Amino acid sequence: MPNARVRQLRAVMAESALQALLVTHLSNVRYLSGFTGSSCALLVTHDRSILFTDGRYRTQANEEVEHARVVIGKKAPSIQAADWINGRTPGPLALGIEAEHLTVFSRSALRKALPSRVEIRPTASMIEHLRMIKDAAELASIRKAVQLGSNLFKHVVKAIRPGVKELEVAAELEYQARRAGAEAMSFETIIAAGKRSALPHGRASAARVGRGFVVCDFGVILAGYCSDMTRTVYVGNPSSASRNFYQAVLDAQQAALASVRAGISTGEVDEAARKLLKKRGLANFFTHSTGHGVGLEIHEAPRVAAGQKEILKPGMVITIEPGAYVPGKWGVRIEDMVAVTERGCEILTSTGKELVTI
Amino acid sequence: MPNARVRQLRAVMAESALQALLVTHLSNVRYLSGFTGSSCALLVTHDRSILFTDGRYRTQANEEVEHARVVIGKKAPSIQAADWINGRTPGPLALGIEAEHLTVFSRSALRKALPSRVEIRPTASMIEHLRMIKDAAELASIRKAVQLGSNLFKHVVKAIRPGVKELEVAAELEYQARRAGAEAMSFETIIAAGKRSALPHGRASAARVGRGFVVCDFGVILAGYCSDMTRTVYVGNPSSASRNFYQAVLDAQQAALASVRAGISTGEVDEAARKLLKKRGLANFFTHSTGHGVGLEIHEAPRVAAGQKEILKPGMVITIEPGAYVPGKWGVRIEDMVAVTERGCEILTSTGKELVTI
Repeated sequence: MPNARVRQLRAVMAESALQALLVTHLSNVRYLSGFTGSSCALLVTHDRSILFTDGRYRTQANEEVEHARVVIGKKAPSIQAADWINGRTPGPLALGIEAEHLTVFSRSALRKALPSRVEIRPTASMIEHLRMIKDAAELASIRKAVQLGSNLFKHVVKAIRPGVKELEVAAELEYQARRAGAEAMSFETIIAAGKRSALPHGRASAARVGRGFVVCDFGVILAGYCSDMTRTVYVGNPSSASRNFYQAVLDAQQAALASVRAGISTGEVDEAARKLLKKRGLANFFTHSTGHGVGLEIHEAPRVAAGQKEILKPGMVITIEPGAYVPGKWGVRIEDMVAVTERGCEILTSTGKELVTI
Repeated sequence: MPNARVRQLRAVMAESALQALLVTHLSNVRYLSGFTGSSCALLVTHDRSILFTDGRYRTQANEEVEHARVVIGKKAPSIQAADWINGRTPGPLALGIEAEHLTVFSRSALRKALPSRVEIRPTASMIEHLRMIKDAAELASIRKAVQLGSNLFKHVVKAIRPGVKELEVAAELEYQARRAGAEAMSFETIIAAGKRSALPHGRASAARVGRGFVVCDFGVILAGYCSDMTRTVYVGNPSSASRNFYQAVLDAQQAALASVRAGISTGEVDEAARKLLKKRGLANFFTHSTGHGVGLEIHEAPRVAAGQKEILKPGMVITIEPGAYVPGKWGVRIEDMVAVTERGCEILTSTGKELVTI
């Protein structure tokens, strides 16, 4: 699989007149080579792929890396790559760097290690752009990760009861995730109860669950791929105001889901959710964007936000997660992951969305 | 507490003739302001500290931030900071950036957003240097995190038995960590059994535990501070060769611990461990460095590695973790966290180090 990806990348590099690209962002290195170590650089030229790492990763690199030569060295991986260029390539060379990931410090060290015949050119999202469209193997991996996430929700519901600490709920969820084979959670689990449900990023805390909404936003990493889902449950007997608030967010989520199909912009998807919440007088309480791409990273391209022009294409995988938050009072968010198809989308998250009361 | 830290930083900024520093590395922002959100920039001038973030973090910023003004905006936080500089400061200004953290892309966007009277100057490890010396509040937090880690080891021992999957052991450990209040693990738990014990970074996998060594390397995050410890246990009845191998690593670890005191270099600590393993004929199997600083981040300054000149000072907190790995056969690592004192060190990790057999 990496081989086809490298071929695609070489086509893009040729369009940009780059003779080589230094890949330093870990998930991009993994995408192209299969390597999962945390200290590495992948140099891609028109006919070679070379992974530079250090002695700690010798065995792992030999086991994991496909379609690239592995070089073990003592210097920083990108400096090893510079040394390789120094020794193996003659004449002028345009070397792309990943400007959104390489630090100012590393660029400067790279410049010093390279001869002046090498021109360093910033590139942006070159591999991320390829990664937006998931291939069949990736879609299969993502389906499995999302299914695992969906299956875990029942453990969340079981753990939530009045008086339990948010982090005890997270502990139970994460335990079950690990036992089911997850490598890790894809981000810090959000279990935000009562007034804390109004915090869009309310990581599980020592606060105890009382009466009211509990926002549960979590994901797993399985075989490298992330899942992401949110459900909001209610502890106690919801008032009709609570039910209406929940329903408004659910309607916004359904409206956004209904808008998804190849050919429309992600900004239009965001607008579909925002328009519905505006009708219900909640526009000002929807303080984040509608979604984001998911894959090897929990947040990747495309952004699904106001004004975004990126056009949806089959094979893109995005979240649809509108929410509404009244500071000091309550908050609701509902989130599915979907795969974009020609005529609509496949909703990957299988968990129901009617309001669960506990 | 942040106030004293900002004062120290201002003294360093003055030495470097910087009128302002743009802090973008999240743990540095947290160190100086208390803010734990994931999208922010802190601008420190000679008389002001301003934290820029976005609407998602309004409530959280108001709850957490001390000794800094909070500004909520829609642009990227560092661009908000540039706009503030544009509007509020007159005349030439030297603005430091964190070159080891800011990306080439962000630097370029920052340059475009700033007037030409502002000179952008790369800085390196300015705040990390301050963070090497832990203050009393930090030492107290670290002791608690390390104690929690030490307490959890009994759950690891209990979970390890022939036939169990490595990741089931990790699941049990992480569950107990969460229940005990850990916000998260400080890195991906390493449970590496049998031949996998020879992988210095053998993250817990679906492999089953059999006869032989099991390297258990894990840490928690508690109130923002990391712990890190490694113990290696043996499943079955160890041969005398296994025992000797274990003892060599333990002796190396003890030798390194005995060398720690204010005034010597971290390179000398590394040498103490390496020398012992060389005597036992294992020098080539110790393929990583002896340790690293720990605090708000799991890996921070100083490095405890061959040739390092950094001088130990009271209040530094480092790991001492030599290991030996024979690829395809076995590996052992033993790791404690210590706080450097004038005359030696305080070993923070309280778990015993005799070989535990299961």
